[in-house]
Amino acid sequence: MGGEDKVKAVVLLSGGLDSTVTSYIAKQKGLELYALTVQYGQRHSHEIESAEKVAKALGVNDHKVIKLDLAAFGGSALTDKNIEVPKDRSFRDIEKSGIPATYVPARNAIMLSIALAYAETVDADEIYIGAHCLDYSGYPDCRPEFIDAFQKMADLATKRGVEGKPIKIQVPLIELDKTQIIEKGKELGVPFELTRSCYTDQKKSCGSCDSCKLRLKGFEKAGLKDPVEYEK
Amino acid sequence: MGGEDKVKAVVLLSGGLDSTVTSYIAKQKGLELYALTVQYGQRHSHEIESAEKVAKALGVNDHKVIKLDLAAFGGSALTDKNIEVPKDRSFRDIEKSGIPATYVPARNAIMLSIALAYAETVDADEIYIGAHCLDYSGYPDCRPEFIDAFQKMADLATKRGVEGKPIKIQVPLIELDKTQIIEKGKELGVPFELTRSCYTDQKKSCGSCDSCKLRLKGFEKAGLKDPVEYEK
Repeated sequence: MGGEDKVKAVVLLSGGLDSTVTSYIAKQKGLELYALTVQYGQRHSHEIESAEKVAKALGVNDHKVIKLDLAAFGGSALTDKNIEVPKDRSFRDIEKSGIPATYVPARNAIMLSIALAYAETVDADEIYIGAHCLDYSGYPDCRPEFIDAFQKMADLATKRGVEGKPIKIQVPLIELDKTQIIEKGKELGVPFELTRSCYTDQKKSCGSCDSCKLRLKGFEKAGLKDPVEYEK
Repeated sequence: MGGEDKVKAVVLLSGGLDSTVTSYIAKQKGLELYALTVQYGQRHSHEIESAEKVAKALGVNDHKVIKLDLAAFGGSALTDKNIEVPKDRSFRDIEKSGIPATYVPARNAIMLSIALAYAETVDADEIYIGAHCLDYSGYPDCRPEFIDAFQKMADLATKRGVEGKPIKIQVPLIELDKTQIIEKGKELGVPFELTRSCYTDQKKSCGSCDSCKLRLKGFEKAGLKDPVEYEK
């Protein structure tokens, strides 16, 4: 980069809390942001509207919403209407359950691969993703060892990797829990009211799926009020 | 697998020569096939029709055609109308050119990740892809070291990997050149007339893009006639 040129970064923005805080961390670093939202057939399509609002608030250079119909495969409570989103589980049950029904096969591998394509075409040096492995989410593709393996693969898959300018995968939340993520967001002035975490397709967040429960507990422990409206 | 159950495999089927021969190799092994075609915004959309015909001829258990609009990013002669498909290059020039204009950023990482999602949902043990690194194609994501790195990443990304039943990426053509691929196809009774290799969007194959030239040379060296019609 010469002179005044800003470093470019692709941010994977779902419209949820984690990806929004991640994007604000990238913004704070002074990067030129290219937001990427993948509409993969998730039943919680209200998330996409949140992503659009957050991208606007962030002042990104561009925002691409790319469709990929993973619902054609099914196999996850998030894409297949025949599989129920678990509700009202205790934190003990969430913790004990291993890989949950809301696991979407290979989701982060797909998301990061598409982000890699976007990063190469806009000549971005970095990709930001809001993956983190605490809160017992049980998702295999949120673990640091997955991110490391993806990085190695990406360096071999791309023209930039071959040319010695690999695209770096950044996971600033990887070691934070939900409370710490919310505290970080507060510090950065994240507009929490624009975000959406609920796994259901209800207009108002349900308040009882694993994602809503973890979010509400996180706000409570951070001593903050969640500005999002809940069904119950 | 117990009793009469066949092993399942996802085959990445573009409709080109390489992916078709690869699919016939998987068929010969007695696998139950799930074909996957990704319509990524390639200008050579005639390939999709070929994929459909080949899938039918193969007798696959299912064939999914998934759309993903990589043309929204551009950056490749195969997806961006503003970048010309190189034509009438000598084999010496093709060989010397490094990564060509027809490189699609992160294509095989994306394809294989989507195949991984499909494989997990149908409980397939293997994924077949027609990547090979000879013929000086210059694509970074066709090299054996890329495939190895993808395998490691996939084992960490998926539920099956965590559960000790990793999905194996199979690249039966990896060490073959175009002539050997055609000879292998002949041996397996591949319907070459259904396949399409041309990079352009013309109805008849152009005969002068790198892909047509490598194909024609391969048939010539194998002592066979290519049944596909060419413009010139």
